[in-house]
Amino acid sequence: MKALVYHGPGKKSWEEKPKSELKETTDAVVKILKTTICGTDLHIMKGDLPEVTDGRILGHEGVGVIEEAGSSVSNFKKGDHVIISCVTSCGKCEYCRKGMYSHCEKGGWILGHMIDGTQAEYVRIPYADNSLYPVPAGSDEESLVMLSDILPTGFECGVLNGQVKPGDIIAIVGAGPVGMAALLTAQFYTPAEIIVIDQDDNRLEVAKTFGATHIINSAKENVQIKVMGLTDGKGVDTAIEAVGVPATFELCEEIIAAGGHIANVGVHGKSVTLHLETLWDRNISITTRLVDTVTTPMLLKTVQSKKIEPEKLITHRFKLDQIIEAYDTFEHAAKEKALKVLIEI
Amino acid sequence: MKALVYHGPGKKSWEEKPKSELKETTDAVVKILKTTICGTDLHIMKGDLPEVTDGRILGHEGVGVIEEAGSSVSNFKKGDHVIISCVTSCGKCEYCRKGMYSHCEKGGWILGHMIDGTQAEYVRIPYADNSLYPVPAGSDEESLVMLSDILPTGFECGVLNGQVKPGDIIAIVGAGPVGMAALLTAQFYTPAEIIVIDQDDNRLEVAKTFGATHIINSAKENVQIKVMGLTDGKGVDTAIEAVGVPATFELCEEIIAAGGHIANVGVHGKSVTLHLETLWDRNISITTRLVDTVTTPMLLKTVQSKKIEPEKLITHRFKLDQIIEAYDTFEHAAKEKALKVLIEI
Amino acid sequence: MKALVYHGPGKKSWEEKPKSELKETTDAVVKILKTTICGTDLHIMKGDLPEVTDGRILGHEGVGVIEEAGSSVSNFKKGDHVIISCVTSCGKCEYCRKGMYSHCEKGGWILGHMIDGTQAEYVRIPYADNSLYPVPAGSDEESLVMLSDILPTGFECGVLNGQVKPGDIIAIVGAGPVGMAALLTAQFYTPAEIIVIDQDDNRLEVAKTFGATHIINSAKENVQIKVMGLTDGKGVDTAIEAVGVPATFELCEEIIAAGGHIANVGVHGKSVTLHLETLWDRNISITTRLVDTVTTPMLLKTVQSKKIEPEKLITHRFKLDQIIEAYDTFEHAAKEKALKVLIEI
Amino acid sequence: MKALVYHGPGKKSWEEKPKSELKETTDAVVKILKTTICGTDLHIMKGDLPEVTDGRILGHEGVGVIEEAGSSVSNFKKGDHVIISCVTSCGKCEYCRKGMYSHCEKGGWILGHMIDGTQAEYVRIPYADNSLYPVPAGSDEESLVMLSDILPTGFECGVLNGQVKPGDIIAIVGAGPVGMAALLTAQFYTPAEIIVIDQDDNRLEVAKTFGATHIINSAKENVQIKVMGLTDGKGVDTAIEAVGVPATFELCEEIIAAGGHIANVGVHGKSVTLHLETLWDRNISITTRLVDTVTTPMLLKTVQSKKIEPEKLITHRFKLDQIIEAYDTFEHAAKEKALKVLIEI
Repeated sequence: MKALVYHGPGKKSWEEKPKSELKETTDAVVKILKTTICGTDLHIMKGDLPEVTDGRILGHEGVGVIEEAGSSVSNFKKGDHVIISCVTSCGKCEYCRKGMYSHCEKGGWILGHMIDGTQAEYVRIPYADNSLYPVPAGSDEESLVMLSDILPTGFECGVLNGQVKPGDIIAIVGAGPVGMAALLTAQFYTPAEIIVIDQDDNRLEVAKTFGATHIINSAKENVQIKVMGLTDGKGVDTAIEAVGVPATFELCEEIIAAGGHIANVGVHGKSVTLHLETLWDRNISITTRLVDTVTTPMLLKTVQSKKIEPEKLITHRFKLDQIIEAYDTFEHAAKEKALKVLIEI
Repeated sequence: MKALVYHGPGKKSWEEKPKSELKETTDAVVKILKTTICGTDLHIMKGDLPEVTDGRILGHEGVGVIEEAGSSVSNFKKGDHVIISCVTSCGKCEYCRKGMYSHCEKGGWILGHMIDGTQAEYVRIPYADNSLYPVPAGSDEESLVMLSDILPTGFECGVLNGQVKPGDIIAIVGAGPVGMAALLTAQFYTPAEIIVIDQDDNRLEVAKTFGATHIINSAKENVQIKVMGLTDGKGVDTAIEAVGVPATFELCEEIIAAGGHIANVGVHGKSVTLHLETLWDRNISITTRLVDTVTTPMLLKTVQSKKIEPEKLITHRFKLDQIIEAYDTFEHAAKEKALKVLIEI
Repeated sequence: MKALVYHGPGKKSWEEKPKSELKETTDAVVKILKTTICGTDLHIMKGDLPEVTDGRILGHEGVGVIEEAGSSVSNFKKGDHVIISCVTSCGKCEYCRKGMYSHCEKGGWILGHMIDGTQAEYVRIPYADNSLYPVPAGSDEESLVMLSDILPTGFECGVLNGQVKPGDIIAIVGAGPVGMAALLTAQFYTPAEIIVIDQDDNRLEVAKTFGATHIINSAKENVQIKVMGLTDGKGVDTAIEAVGVPATFELCEEIIAAGGHIANVGVHGKSVTLHLETLWDRNISITTRLVDTVTTPMLLKTVQSKKIEPEKLITHRFKLDQIIEAYDTFEHAAKEKALKVLIEI
Repeated sequence: MKALVYHGPGKKSWEEKPKSELKETTDAVVKILKTTICGTDLHIMKGDLPEVTDGRILGHEGVGVIEEAGSSVSNFKKGDHVIISCVTSCGKCEYCRKGMYSHCEKGGWILGHMIDGTQAEYVRIPYADNSLYPVPAGSDEESLVMLSDILPTGFECGVLNGQVKPGDIIAIVGAGPVGMAALLTAQFYTPAEIIVIDQDDNRLEVAKTFGATHIINSAKENVQIKVMGLTDGKGVDTAIEAVGVPATFELCEEIIAAGGHIANVGVHGKSVTLHLETLWDRNISITTRLVDTVTTPMLLKTVQSKKIEPEKLITHRFKLDQIIEAYDTFEHAAKEKALKVLIEI
């Protein structure tokens, strides 16, 4: 089969690999229909995740069709269309039982990371019963690719941990794909105002069409002054950090209201300064989370009932054998005005 | 009346002051029966809180008897015995209505800080109906002094924010009075193990008699190694920071389990380093809080029903006119083996 | 002043009464600008609430302007526009402190019930600081009359107690004004489907324009069969009872899914049969509640930010001196296609 | 092997049956070391559960040792000591994923009900990975038999659903084994007072030794009057119904405080009268639940750390081949002063 293979920092190729096969009775092999590229894939390509080794097939998102199901798989059979979750869950360990699939003792985020991933014609999915979700008949499968990672990430790490409530004023720092996913799903809880902050005017304009009530270009404006102006000097009830660098996290510390919630979504490579000398008496919470994908069934219902239109996140489309070109586009997201690039057979 | 008056860093005296009087119809004047000294009072004496000005009567804890109640006060009348809350609550503002009395627009922590306090023969209490609590008939009033500040602080900022649950393994970093209050009140939720960490062997021994199942002297042992040994390498479910310096907060970051809760109780004067590069995917929460004293009624019930014996925190007793001596003892808490010093008429 | 006065079952008149005056320093007198009639007022007129005595001015909803504020009132002053809450809260008692204003020891629902109400030119509001809410500048005051009772009732008793979540399928039994308020506010939480059940085709059609995804006329269709058809045979996640008779409550028992929530909003005059022989193992919750109006500030934010348009509930408009005619219309709500009748000066 | 076999109402025998065998790769066969009899077994013997058919081996509680594990079982291997949960969980269905194992699409309560159970020398356990729990080395295995059903039932259906909090006054109606389990586990949350109500003086005396602060014999005293006397006329914060007949449920309705929680634990065969005419405005919750056993890991930690001593529930001990005699004793529990009868090899 053909697959996108990592060969060390900066090196990847679309090449022939042995077709994915069952290894355990709980596995399924899925033929990929649609996949996409995540910001994390770019981090891998830069060499930021040294645990990813030469020869690894990348990718942890996708929709496909069951090619073969192991003998212990009972929820799916050959021919079923499925959403592939970016997080693999055994369903049996201490963490899976409490809904913390991200820390599954045998799974977690392993696809396109510790085992071969979804940017290929076929992929082996361990613990298929707990790691795949059925595509409802008649669904728009493009939308559902967004359920593999980006929507549950924005929703669980940002919106749920941020405790967004009706009438709140919230800020989302970072208008990349995950920030946009937080923007779309935050509206499930009807906040009064959503302030989106980024340095890219194009993304900010898109955010407005997705429901932002205020936008701030942090390269051009003093964010703290503007946010305080919008909030009677109190700050925001929830600040969702969707970038992953110290400056944006510390911005969240500056704009959070007393009693508010800072929900970290970004993947951080460095420590940040936590200003406890001003925050110790502010009654705030700060949360971190690797997405558990425990809300995938709920999100699927909201997509099915048209409460959210995640296909709006897709800005570019490529065929599977154009995946190198798709990476090029995604790597120059600002210039290309790209959010999510869809890759399909 | 006699009062303990602050005269700038390092200077205090027990001196004559005009007797406290009603200023508003919602005030009460309380004759002090018992009071105590808080770590924060020592901070004020060091000059760490420049908003406290020369001439201020210190103190924010106490039990007393209503000397005079303003015309709008309806919950109390002359002669009633009351617990004075360290936090003043107007009961009418946005924050009070959501139980966040610490940020009351007209109150919060003002006693012995922005207005005269309880280390005196009399004290004026604003918004008496919402800032005082009735002493049940026949109570041990010594116990109840601990309800002014220390018990709700350990309980709300440490135990509740830390989400202590039956069967959990928790760590309390700092075995001073507030850490001890967290230790006592954490047991309301029946954790399996409580690890108390401090540098003072005496306090650690006392912690054991108060319910600690493990003690670690951080001056002598590698805390992280020892905690990991006690927790199967997972870390603790809840880490309560009750010191207020960077080293102890960062220790909490090192020993927290995936999915765990760091509850900050300490008053911090400096920023700390938050290791998001390792914590971003650990599904943790970090909370800060100035005590709201919203649990005082609940805590009072637990004291009345003998579920907790807060008088155990009292190690020394002084008369009101020995208060300078009481300060001396409390300032040398380690040497004097002091937790709380009770001061009574 | 003129007022609508109750003179025993079936008897009311628009007559001259002494102008409302302050009695306590915590009172305010409010000049009524807009008021409305509640289903409960009709119950009173039928004699169902014998505690309401001859001579009582009815009404517990309204928007007005402060005519005079008592000396202890600090949140409001003469000339301020205010929303009058149907529930009076002293802000000082055990119940008020835990947000259960409905059971306030000195207040609760007393307006137009135990004390004179809002269907008059002026009304005295006890504990004004905690029982009135400021009208933001530039607001549509018609909308805000709906915040006195109907919106918090539908929201607190129905939506919050019913734990409505994104993606849920919910049923609202009863499409009168309070059921409609639940319908509007349920959408804050983005349920996938909202099934509205009533016997009045007109109200069902209106429900559709307010966001119902399915309507069922229970006089014409078998509700249980239809609901099971819409829910894969599982039943609904939340059933909101907004009628108040045994048949509708028992219908909720029939259509609730395992793990679901029955939220009672209706005012019941008779006991109902609870089928524990089938429900004991269904993991359901049943809740009752007299509205606390604790969410009024949150609801006000959602109205201000146009997330909800409660003025849609107003079907008829009358002048204050046409109030007898307004009662006539509201008493024949089905024939008149009335939801809320607005009465204004 | 030998087994206790049901042969229709009133008929059972200790007889030879084919030894339990694996049927699916996810099964395990467990050799029983200790088992016990549940009140539900007595209901089956009376013919109250017609779905139980002639030839069924009864029993759904026990501790044993893995005799053989299916090829897909990964958490356990031959020789491991295990707790058998009364509820079988597949770990893969919609209900299992949200922690509602009681409604597992392929499991739930099936042992000794729809499939052969634990009152035998061997038992086949489906979905062994998710339906068995490891016995920690060195444990008292008698204690752990109580974790199969009775402790999670009292805890989940009674204490958790009843939202027991520190300082609360709670009532437990019914001092049988499950009521006693609620009594023991309620103390995890440190209520101020626990009132136990029953008609059997012996059980009430035992309840006192287990932590009841007040006991009421409902055959001899007016419960409502006595409870109101103990609660300042307010009623209890939580009422746990652990009997399963209309009279006891309605008693809970009479003694519940405004804002309180009625947690049904009892298995009901008849409908009850719900007095909504008095309860509609009392802000209460009523819950039902078939135990999910989702708290078994938490309960195991509390047993291991000696926070609870469930072996106190065991009043009688029999050998496995004396099981008919054990049934005799348990059927005459009042006369025999029996709570749980332990049956061991």
